[in-house]
Amino acid sequence: MSEKDLNALFLDTLKDIYYAEKQIYKALPKMAKAAESDQLRAAFEKHHDETENHIQRLEQIFELLHKPARGKKCDAIEGILDEGKEIMEEYENEPALDAGLLAAAQAVEHYEISRYGTLKAWAEKLNMAGAIKLLDQTLAEEKKTDETLSRIATSVVNAEAA
Amino acid sequence: MSEKDLNALFLDTLKDIYYAEKQIYKALPKMAKAAESDQLRAAFEKHHDETENHIQRLEQIFELLHKPARGKKCDAIEGILDEGKEIMEEYENEPALDAGLLAAAQAVEHYEISRYGTLKAWAEKLNMAGAIKLLDQTLAEEKKTDETLSRIATSVVNAEAA
Repeated sequence: MSEKDLNALFLDTLKDIYYAEKQIYKALPKMAKAAESDQLRAAFEKHHDETENHIQRLEQIFELLHKPARGKKCDAIEGILDEGKEIMEEYENEPALDAGLLAAAQAVEHYEISRYGTLKAWAEKLNMAGAIKLLDQTLAEEKKTDETLSRIATSVVNAEAA
Repeated sequence: MSEKDLNALFLDTLKDIYYAEKQIYKALPKMAKAAESDQLRAAFEKHHDETENHIQRLEQIFELLHKPARGKKCDAIEGILDEGKEIMEEYENEPALDAGLLAAAQAVEHYEISRYGTLKAWAEKLNMAGAIKLLDQTLAEEKKTDETLSRIATSVVNAEAA
């Protein structure tokens, strides 16, 4: 068995985020359906479309590495999404539902920002020019989504407080 | 039963991060012990001390709210820390161990940054002056820790590539 170097860790982490993105892709329509605010629902729907691109970009990276695109169960995203499900159940029809959904979605974004940031840093070290570009595109979109959610959070929470 | 408004959501989320901080406090010495690099071990030890302060600050916020300091099982941090344990097992004595530990620790930091950012925004809306100050101190330390880990990651990965 070969030693587990940075190339092995890169591939393991790629499988982890590939699994995570697929779970997020399945969770977003449920979150959109649960959202009370039209603005929040639209943001979740837009991010659902973006997530499809993120999955395709990861598949392109697997291709560049001549590896089959395969996910690896990611306990972190399971736990983060479970907290989102809990909010949907416990805050159904309650005034703070959207604030809770936003917090759950921002926890997801931060997990992704952390993972894509790490993968991009490793890709740079491993001189994977093609992968760097793809990872950077997704990283920028995740950061933008987090900012959009922060903006919506302000208006949602203001509306509730009014 | 009273309705679940932003005050209820704030308290629920406070319990979530209180539980999370206690789990992180238990995990950090194990991560420090596993780390190969002295610099990384020292960073984990320093963050262990800081985490003790973060727990105390949360207890002060519970006090300000006249509520008992109680945690609520946080699936997200369980999942994120499980990934860290997996790295410690799968990469034991392997060249990419420290890079993997760093990635795991940065996922933890990003979860905390997301939670403290959300709590601070809600505390502002709820005019909780005391809580805002305490949350902001911890948020600043979490961000600084994430930056420190990014810096260490660059030198650890450079050393491995050399």
